[in-house]
Amino acid sequence: MNMIGGCDLRDIANRFGTPLYLYDAARIERNCHALRDAFNAHYPATDIFYAVKANGNPHLLRLIASCGTGADCAAPLEVTLAERAGIPREKIMYTGNYESRDDLAAAARCGAVNLDDITAIGKLPAGFDGILSFRINPGEGGGSHPGIVTGGPDAKFGIPIESAPAAYRLAVDRGFTRFGIHLMAGSNNRDPLFFARMAAILCHSAADIFRPLGILPEYFDIGGGFGIPYAEDETPLDLDAMARAVAATLALCASQHGVTPPRLRIEPGRFIVGDAGYLLARVTAVKKGLRRFVGLDAGMNTLIRPALYGSHHRVTVVGKETPAGMATLCGRICENTDIFAADIPFPAVTEGDIVLFHDAGAYCASMAFPYNGRLRPAEVLCDNGKPFRIARAENEAEFMERYEA
Amino acid sequence: MNMIGGCDLRDIANRFGTPLYLYDAARIERNCHALRDAFNAHYPATDIFYAVKANGNPHLLRLIASCGTGADCAAPLEVTLAERAGIPREKIMYTGNYESRDDLAAAARCGAVNLDDITAIGKLPAGFDGILSFRINPGEGGGSHPGIVTGGPDAKFGIPIESAPAAYRLAVDRGFTRFGIHLMAGSNNRDPLFFARMAAILCHSAADIFRPLGILPEYFDIGGGFGIPYAEDETPLDLDAMARAVAATLALCASQHGVTPPRLRIEPGRFIVGDAGYLLARVTAVKKGLRRFVGLDAGMNTLIRPALYGSHHRVTVVGKETPAGMATLCGRICENTDIFAADIPFPAVTEGDIVLFHDAGAYCASMAFPYNGRLRPAEVLCDNGKPFRIARAENEAEFMERYEA
Repeated sequence: MNMIGGCDLRDIANRFGTPLYLYDAARIERNCHALRDAFNAHYPATDIFYAVKANGNPHLLRLIASCGTGADCAAPLEVTLAERAGIPREKIMYTGNYESRDDLAAAARCGAVNLDDITAIGKLPAGFDGILSFRINPGEGGGSHPGIVTGGPDAKFGIPIESAPAAYRLAVDRGFTRFGIHLMAGSNNRDPLFFARMAAILCHSAADIFRPLGILPEYFDIGGGFGIPYAEDETPLDLDAMARAVAATLALCASQHGVTPPRLRIEPGRFIVGDAGYLLARVTAVKKGLRRFVGLDAGMNTLIRPALYGSHHRVTVVGKETPAGMATLCGRICENTDIFAADIPFPAVTEGDIVLFHDAGAYCASMAFPYNGRLRPAEVLCDNGKPFRIARAENEAEFMERYEA
Repeated sequence: MNMIGGCDLRDIANRFGTPLYLYDAARIERNCHALRDAFNAHYPATDIFYAVKANGNPHLLRLIASCGTGADCAAPLEVTLAERAGIPREKIMYTGNYESRDDLAAAARCGAVNLDDITAIGKLPAGFDGILSFRINPGEGGGSHPGIVTGGPDAKFGIPIESAPAAYRLAVDRGFTRFGIHLMAGSNNRDPLFFARMAAILCHSAADIFRPLGILPEYFDIGGGFGIPYAEDETPLDLDAMARAVAATLALCASQHGVTPPRLRIEPGRFIVGDAGYLLARVTAVKKGLRRFVGLDAGMNTLIRPALYGSHHRVTVVGKETPAGMATLCGRICENTDIFAADIPFPAVTEGDIVLFHDAGAYCASMAFPYNGRLRPAEVLCDNGKPFRIARAENEAEFMERYEA
């Protein structure tokens, strides 16, 4: 793979330097539209809120918003990012946890807020006139790593279903009139039926919660977690099957309860940007020691997923496709967590070769950190053969400036 | 614990805000001197090089340097930090891995460089007149987490001992005349005998390597890894026993080989700043869900060690000491990795209470990252009752500025 988004990777590496995050504009748009189309076919009353946390680059946000997508925000700064991307209030949603009063002041600027606990009601600024929702913990979860399973007894998120009626009762008593209901039980899930099961839990819970209160929810929000394949042998999430199963579940559940199913909200992050992003790095040194080690100018500080979650990212070498034995890929950070992949078949590379980490659009740049004196890389968007720098590399002067207290 | 370095924690939290990294100047000095004293007693020919990666705050660097300590640097920016702290060239050392040519250009500004591989010789700038050393992989390692075990067959660091003679032979052939030898096999080790074993490996290897070449090494560098207790039931590293054992080992080994033992170098990072640093946070919300969850304004983005290494940090609450049941402590980041401690005995706390993470001086601020819209906190040094802000919090404007490409 030598081209991305119509841009030649060698040119890009020479012009912008490495390490570098690279995004494919067309792929982002395609992902947005694929998700949109799947729900249009089966449950058109679906609103998509991009999970800003996956990648909050303002240029990507604007691109994603231009596909008609709203924003799901996890912190005040993310609300600001969404606002600056020109997303209208009703398409900005806040989903926090353990919200401070400052957090909820920012949340109140959004059209809807998914509260993590009953205690958050009392901290919402007076006069909030958006949609109020609680995140329920469905009692089960599912994700590709324990750290991103966000439902079940070990999850810090949401309120137990049995506590939800009291929470909504309090909200009604406090004068709130517009309601939704939310859950988000895990990230990076590629099983269509997982999403149908979450829709079922949400829909049945909603009936139990809202009927006694005599209120109609304006939305069911089943969260995000739409997975992508990271490994060669993983199959993509079948979007059509997923949307079909979710729609069938909601129709059946609503008919069982004799209600009209409300609008559906989903919060994809990884699904939209994950496979549209790459991390470009250069080989700094090849060491033939106890193993063959290939050292790169990227590190755990630019791609923490392998160290943090044991994640796998496909890796290719520009212009070199044939493996020549095994190699262990690592960065230059002084800890052994700084290994991207151990003993994988890898081409014969030398200093300066360009290595491409795939599926690095989500939770890579957004989790980058300056460590061991290695600062955060630049980001480039390739749009129809034209590269645009959409973030400059962190520089020494600004790194130092924070300390001139 | 309501005071640190003579500063009242409530005052500090009110004045500087939370989350906040806090350092105790006297404790840093005490740690430097304790290490110094231990080696002075048993092996006075020891030079201490502070591992900048542990915490590169320039103000702390200057404080540490004022105790007579040099700097061990892992990247060009760390060399710049050491130079700006006023540390003279002969007390700045470079220990990299998979060094690029740029890295080695910066390394050549140092008085000594510990090369990770034989191939690095060819990339060192011509005219480097400092001490050249290779990092050897002792074939074994030891640390408190697999990710910080930096020796043995799975470690990406250094060259196998059996490759070292060829590496030094090449260096001699290239005209280098001043040599050292280095290893660093693991981090956060509290076993005195571990360091003695490393000294033995290094000393015996040096004899094998240097005798045939007819050269005398100017230093043995046994690296860092001097551990600190994180948990209540962990005992501190016995410095006196460690220094005594290292000295005895070196004396014995040197007499076996009929040589004078050279100067010793050590590279403590965590040992100097670890227990002198704290992370101050406030309770944002308490949720009584499936467990009692205490949410804080700090998160995995300000203290990644629990998520990354499964590390434990002691936690106390300012003004509240008596536990009232169990609690799970977490931040506001939208993933379940964002849990500091699960089901620990914890006082009854409410919104606004100040929570103190102990032993957060090393690998906490230096690994902080802006994520989920939560930016990096400020840092304060308490010196004899006076607080000095030594880093300001990252702000929204500078976060945004990188994207105005």
